Amino acid sequence: MRAVDIIRKKRDGEALAQAEIDAFVRGATTGTWPDYQVAALLMAIWLRGLSAEETAALTAAMVASGIRLDLSDIPGPKVDKHSTGGVGDKTSLVLAPLAAVGGVVVPMMSGRGLGHSGGTLDKLESIPGFRVGLGLDEFRAALRQVGCALIGPTAAVAPADRVLYHLRDVTATVESIPLITASILSKKIAEGIDALVLDVKCGRGAFMKHRADARRLAGSLVEVGTARGLRTKALITAMEHPLGRAVGNAVEVVEALETLKGRGPADLEMLSVQLAAHMLLLGGVAAGMEEAEAKVRDALASGRGLEKLRAVIERQGGDPHVIDDYRRLPTAPCCHLLRAERSGYVVGIHAEQVGRATMLLGAGRDRKEDAVDHAVGLVVRAGVGEEVRTGDPLAEVHYRDADRLGKALPLLGTAWEIGDAPPPPAPLVLETLG
Amino acid sequence: MRAVDIIRKKRDGEALAQAEIDAFVRGATTGTWPDYQVAALLMAIWLRGLSAEETAALTAAMVASGIRLDLSDIPGPKVDKHSTGGVGDKTSLVLAPLAAVGGVVVPMMSGRGLGHSGGTLDKLESIPGFRVGLGLDEFRAALRQVGCALIGPTAAVAPADRVLYHLRDVTATVESIPLITASILSKKIAEGIDALVLDVKCGRGAFMKHRADARRLAGSLVEVGTARGLRTKALITAMEHPLGRAVGNAVEVVEALETLKGRGPADLEMLSVQLAAHMLLLGGVAAGMEEAEAKVRDALASGRGLEKLRAVIERQGGDPHVIDDYRRLPTAPCCHLLRAERSGYVVGIHAEQVGRATMLLGAGRDRKEDAVDHAVGLVVRAGVGEEVRTGDPLAEVHYRDADRLGKALPLLGTAWEIGDAPPPPAPLVLETLG
Repeated sequence: MRAVDIIRKKRDGEALAQAEIDAFVRGATTGTWPDYQVAALLMAIWLRGLSAEETAALTAAMVASGIRLDLSDIPGPKVDKHSTGGVGDKTSLVLAPLAAVGGVVVPMMSGRGLGHSGGTLDKLESIPGFRVGLGLDEFRAALRQVGCALIGPTAAVAPADRVLYHLRDVTATVESIPLITASILSKKIAEGIDALVLDVKCGRGAFMKHRADARRLAGSLVEVGTARGLRTKALITAMEHPLGRAVGNAVEVVEALETLKGRGPADLEMLSVQLAAHMLLLGGVAAGMEEAEAKVRDALASGRGLEKLRAVIERQGGDPHVIDDYRRLPTAPCCHLLRAERSGYVVGIHAEQVGRATMLLGAGRDRKEDAVDHAVGLVVRAGVGEEVRTGDPLAEVHYRDADRLGKALPLLGTAWEIGDAPPPPAPLVLETLG
Repeated sequence: MRAVDIIRKKRDGEALAQAEIDAFVRGATTGTWPDYQVAALLMAIWLRGLSAEETAALTAAMVASGIRLDLSDIPGPKVDKHSTGGVGDKTSLVLAPLAAVGGVVVPMMSGRGLGHSGGTLDKLESIPGFRVGLGLDEFRAALRQVGCALIGPTAAVAPADRVLYHLRDVTATVESIPLITASILSKKIAEGIDALVLDVKCGRGAFMKHRADARRLAGSLVEVGTARGLRTKALITAMEHPLGRAVGNAVEVVEALETLKGRGPADLEMLSVQLAAHMLLLGGVAAGMEEAEAKVRDALASGRGLEKLRAVIERQGGDPHVIDDYRRLPTAPCCHLLRAERSGYVVGIHAEQVGRATMLLGAGRDRKEDAVDHAVGLVVRAGVGEEVRTGDPLAEVHYRDADRLGKALPLLGTAWEIGDAPPPPAPLVLETLG
């Protein structure tokens, strides 16, 4: 089976067999396929596509490129959530402890932020001492003891994904539904989970700007996940405005903690509860959505969700006192108030512009190797639907460096859309698949 | 201008600007674009295509990757011929001296054979001492003195083509009309010629099996060649059966010499004369095809074409006595007679099978690095249209190694199609473009 023949087959729009996809993934991971052959096939896949069956085969091959955790000795269903990335999305920090309290085990491997969208790991690392780099034995022990652990990617899990992602990034082959599907699912399947809830973001702050694309991705994830033996559900959720009011790292941790204390913004609380309830339902620990939601709401109202997060922080070496004293989190030295230039109602906050502005402040990274400033970020003061008068604060901009602030402000200055009437209410959960 | 942005643009089906194509070719040639980015763009080009304008830009960039000969100090129009490759095609050896006698300068850079089709260089190298590797100064001196020189590719000419071809070969991106067009034309333009006649072979022994594909390639070559300032004409010619009767290297040299002596097979003589006449016409040394053909026929009948080839051989270090004594050419130690298994008329000789069989005998190469045996080959005894009886010889197979003969015979055994009636006459020149 020569690489060039496999490339030609896909180039001509034919379906690849499992053995051919195995040869490709093995070749890419071990280096027996040179980069240029991997790149040529990636471009052929980008342009010709992969069927659900081929995508399932690719997912399986990528799982097989590394170790697949066996968590069967830990009691309870293992359920995870994955988001395709948004602005201000700190739901993982809220829902992981709530779902764990609700009765499922949550072995969550997350990623770092890139571009305008944030990453759970960067947020967690704003907690002093918090270790996202647990070894697999520690990960397993934390899951057994706490029922929930939040860690970063591990070299042993789906190494093919790193090789392929690196090449996709520099060959314009990132935005491919089948390649994204296999990348997400291979890492999640290798975690050893039984079920997966997907939050497919859709809108100007998301990777998928259009509903049709989001639906294609969600459909692919559910079809391929299910084909690979994972109980899979996907929610398509709106990402036009930032989720909640905080965008950054430490500021998002504060908002997640406030939410677990019952004082969070309505959109963040609602979405976290919804996603956690779907996790319980898929995990089989609730008979229907009503029961699942009730369990999650109880975990929230009782404060047991907050205590679970405290246990997670303690177990992973973080300072649990941050929960009671936010001053223990990094704070930025300066604060700028962004003000309204006219009176009216906030009808929109451009999520991508806000995300890009906070990245420029230092809260995110443009390239993978950039460092992140956990203290800087933005807190919305005038949210969508609220009335403002000229000069009213729209947001607090927490910054460290005046130059960086100068780069961020032009984006922020046009991010708030102010109209003459409040906007019609818009749903946050747009669709549910699976 | 980042490589990834240029790749994305072509991936999305947009046209690339000259500056973007320049960056690609320069990046590929100098290595500042890694192979995987070059490969990804080649696949995007394969699948999305290039317009005639983009192909002209690519051709220009590839010419600019090396030196472009300036032959303006040598008097007379410089005209070359290029064939897309066939079986038994030794026209270059016949027409180059005829065209030179007819009044144009022929600075011919040829290639080696690959796969089932032969190469002019391999044929020339069966002449003892013949040097195809002239330096550019020697090439120029030979052109000035003899009016014709036949050499191999030079590292200084269109180096981008070598880099791109190497990658295309291993990434299934060879068979692309715009990439083939730019590859052929960049090398020819860099030779410093004024006009080019193209022999686009079409049929089962050719790269282009179908008339529509041959027409697309011929059209692209004429359009892009003309756009780049080259007077260009393309003939689409049939390549169903081997051209002439000899297939190999030394055996083809013998046939070319016989043709220059006026004793060659009709199809080879006709095509050589036609192509040479088009060279004279494009070169502006004849007012019309009639005059051009008359000049070529005179060069042939007078023996001056043969004497021109003798001068070429002498000038390039070869043994000119081969012309009068074919025993000075390499000869194979063994000869096998392929015989007819039934009586009837030869209605076809499968060119690709014959080409592949002679390659298996050692006359050609499967991979670029393989060595060639100049002595082996095949001579047709029963050509298309001729009557045979069971047991009559169809071909002489000149071989060295019984094992190789054993591999070639199954292909040869089915290559002759024998029917009950002679086949209808079929034209050799199918179309003329430009």
